[in-house]
Amino acid sequence: MANPVLVEVMRGAVVESRHCGAVAVVDADGATVLALGDVERPVFPRSAVKALQALRMIETGAADRFGLADQELALACASHSGESGHVAAAQSMLARIGLDASYLRCGAHPPMHVPSATALYCAGAEPTALHNNCSGKHSGFLCLNRMLRADPHGYIEPDHPVQREIKATIESITGTSIPDSRRAIDGCSVPTWAVPLKHLALGFARFGTGNSLAPERAKAAARLRAACAAHPWYVAGSGRFCTEVMQRLGARAFVKVGAEGVYLGALPERGLGIAVKCDDGGARAAEVVMAALILRFAALSKDEQATLDHLVRPTLRNWNGIAIGKLRSTDALG
Amino acid sequence: MANPVLVEVMRGAVVESRHCGAVAVVDADGATVLALGDVERPVFPRSAVKALQALRMIETGAADRFGLADQELALACASHSGESGHVAAAQSMLARIGLDASYLRCGAHPPMHVPSATALYCAGAEPTALHNNCSGKHSGFLCLNRMLRADPHGYIEPDHPVQREIKATIESITGTSIPDSRRAIDGCSVPTWAVPLKHLALGFARFGTGNSLAPERAKAAARLRAACAAHPWYVAGSGRFCTEVMQRLGARAFVKVGAEGVYLGALPERGLGIAVKCDDGGARAAEVVMAALILRFAALSKDEQATLDHLVRPTLRNWNGIAIGKLRSTDALG
Repeated sequence: MANPVLVEVMRGAVVESRHCGAVAVVDADGATVLALGDVERPVFPRSAVKALQALRMIETGAADRFGLADQELALACASHSGESGHVAAAQSMLARIGLDASYLRCGAHPPMHVPSATALYCAGAEPTALHNNCSGKHSGFLCLNRMLRADPHGYIEPDHPVQREIKATIESITGTSIPDSRRAIDGCSVPTWAVPLKHLALGFARFGTGNSLAPERAKAAARLRAACAAHPWYVAGSGRFCTEVMQRLGARAFVKVGAEGVYLGALPERGLGIAVKCDDGGARAAEVVMAALILRFAALSKDEQATLDHLVRPTLRNWNGIAIGKLRSTDALG
Repeated sequence: MANPVLVEVMRGAVVESRHCGAVAVVDADGATVLALGDVERPVFPRSAVKALQALRMIETGAADRFGLADQELALACASHSGESGHVAAAQSMLARIGLDASYLRCGAHPPMHVPSATALYCAGAEPTALHNNCSGKHSGFLCLNRMLRADPHGYIEPDHPVQREIKATIESITGTSIPDSRRAIDGCSVPTWAVPLKHLALGFARFGTGNSLAPERAKAAARLRAACAAHPWYVAGSGRFCTEVMQRLGARAFVKVGAEGVYLGALPERGLGIAVKCDDGGARAAEVVMAALILRFAALSKDEQATLDHLVRPTLRNWNGIAIGKLRSTDALG
């Protein structure tokens, strides 16, 4: 069965494009609050589970042992834009364990932040692994690896202790067992594991509340949430959706984008986890869906709602700045 | 009714994302050869009809009067990448009528060709309207405008003689009457008119064959096709799909991308017009669909088919160059 249309792209008065997808909103006991489309279908969460991938770094004591700052914890959960502050924080994480960028196995790509990319090239430099949006996550992997006393060279492989610990963490917090047939390779070369959407929502309900988690895990989740709420710029970057939502709502919302139209998040006050997957991988639609869900479930004041209006119904402008249309969520989202 | 899934995005062995859409393949008599999904739904063709928008420039004698070169005719049909050769050709078109870039109303954006954009910024320059992918089309509008002896300042307005002539051309060649309710504003600020997909396919079947067209229009279409076949780099640019297909197949295929998942084209030898719209606006899927349709309908040799294989089933690689998946068309496309 086809998933419902969640977002319409309006050009003038005509629907120009449509995005279908699935949504799961679940409480920390696993009760479904909203299910749209096929929420049983396994979905690669991609970068949207970086916070879950960072839990073991806290739980094992790596963050304390190596004295990681809250900004660095936020960067471990980030798909950052490669701005100079992000690059410096990744470098600092590596320096705390006596390593440098040559140990990163995420690959290099230009900063997502266009002025930073331009500045880099105009200085005659090339992007490095530090500019990769995953460099904080990978630096966190290397911190965890140091605690595990494993070989730092193979840390991206599925059978390496780092990735085995992370798989077990994701299985445990999402309440699923993931067969090898659902493993693929992520953009940054680590394994990504497809998990049914409703279990991703459950994982984030638990991450957001600590319910059903061992005390150490609940504490680690709270610490990561607090770090991201305090330093949302480190979770994404200038002008980015994740950063802006957490700047506006602080600890009331944790949201994280993943590639291919994924958004995951938690509303700790409400005890809810949210998982969004746009069928076609469209990031623009996933953002609108997440914004609409926050508006619906986060119990915001009128003023707070107004500050999110440009995210819920973004105006589309052309190269002359003329408003030519907008994105809007459909009635399916309430 | 939902449109069928046309393209699957594979990550490893798992379908990560799906693109739905509609396809119309029509012959020059209007007979439907293939119809997938809702081919009656009006679709904004966006930049995919630039060749139709250029017809009046030929028919009115503007191209001859101002001595436009074949490269310039191809640029009038182009969504170019803003490489230096494209910019120079747009400038040359304007110079032929004694105008300069200050007359262009398309707005400025950085060259789509990233090295060209980087070079521009590193030279301390800013993008101009000449770098806009539509600058050739707009320069063509100004050439037509000169023949019409109309005011060059308002040429992007729907009631300006230039846009009225173009609307009439699109209505005539696609065999439709377009109500004002289906008018919106394009990325470059000119009107864009939503037309049912099967009529867009009919328009390109006629454009590709000259059938059912007045002699002057058939001649103009043949001249634009020949110019694009001879100079496909001017229709898009380095590494672009339109350019590569026409470099490989020459006059046997005319293909043109439009924003929001549109692809239109003609297979003159086969007498067919093709219209593709991905529901979600995904360009990657529209390319795969167009490549699959060319493979199915263009009667290519095995060797020619092999040269298109990387467009029909593109391999997806991550930042380390590891093959992580692929795009593939579904059985719906045959």
